[in-house]
Amino acid sequence: MNIVLMEPEIPYNTGNIGRSCVLTNTTLHLIKPLGFSLDEKQIKRSGLDYWELIDLKVWENYEELRAAYPESNFYFATTKTTQKYSDVKYNPNDFIVFGPESRGIPAEIREANKETCITIPMIKMGRSLNLSNSAAIVLYEALRQNNFDLGE
Amino acid sequence: MNIVLMEPEIPYNTGNIGRSCVLTNTTLHLIKPLGFSLDEKQIKRSGLDYWELIDLKVWENYEELRAAYPESNFYFATTKTTQKYSDVKYNPNDFIVFGPESRGIPAEIREANKETCITIPMIKMGRSLNLSNSAAIVLYEALRQNNFDLGE
Repeated sequence: MNIVLMEPEIPYNTGNIGRSCVLTNTTLHLIKPLGFSLDEKQIKRSGLDYWELIDLKVWENYEELRAAYPESNFYFATTKTTQKYSDVKYNPNDFIVFGPESRGIPAEIREANKETCITIPMIKMGRSLNLSNSAAIVLYEALRQNNFDLGE
Repeated sequence: MNIVLMEPEIPYNTGNIGRSCVLTNTTLHLIKPLGFSLDEKQIKRSGLDYWELIDLKVWENYEELRAAYPESNFYFATTKTTQKYSDVKYNPNDFIVFGPESRGIPAEIREANKETCITIPMIKMGRSLNLSNSAAIVLYEALRQNNFDLGE
């Protein structure tokens, strides 16, 4: 599986998502600009001793990532759709994209990918879950659908 | 649904789990001793502006909690079982219990509840996911099984 973080802002979140990726043989893609240095102590601490094991790809921008995987399915996690994350069918090499903590997926990308926007249900007055929790929830639903085949 | 944290150590994790609980109308139970004060700035920051909305119950010990809910189903998240968290059937008012970050669920409690121990699959060399991610994954699987009926 592939997790994509667009312009992540909080190193602790990226570190925790990296830990989930390592533990599931998932590739983590980061799209620049990043709100932190990848050398930063905090990201390493959040990821514990896992960060050096990560399959990490860093991209200059979203277009560069899409061009590198022209045949792949991309899903976009957003609060601005009604399609539940558990109502789509994930394949093992799909990409699940998360926007920056403060802003979410940009409107133009949501508009261009309406059918593959997905959302995590929550109460109506809620704003959003923590980014690393959101990534864990969708990643593990995708893995569940694929019988937790972690490629070992 | 009910999430139980036994002797949680890291306020950032409890704050994030509290945020997930508020957003899903889930009750959060904390079993003492806690590794932090509930007034601590960090827990409020982690929970953003959600912490004051939480349905929170604090218990002196595990036995007190169990005695208060004698009829309820309790599940125990641990790396030390083979039963997958997605292979059990959750009811809307079930309890899902997580141990302290550094030690997990105590052996005697695991032994006494073997049939309701559950685990989140990961690679064999992995140690464990972040606590707040683990709670989010199991909570949302339980909600998914109950059609995301958040009682609104």
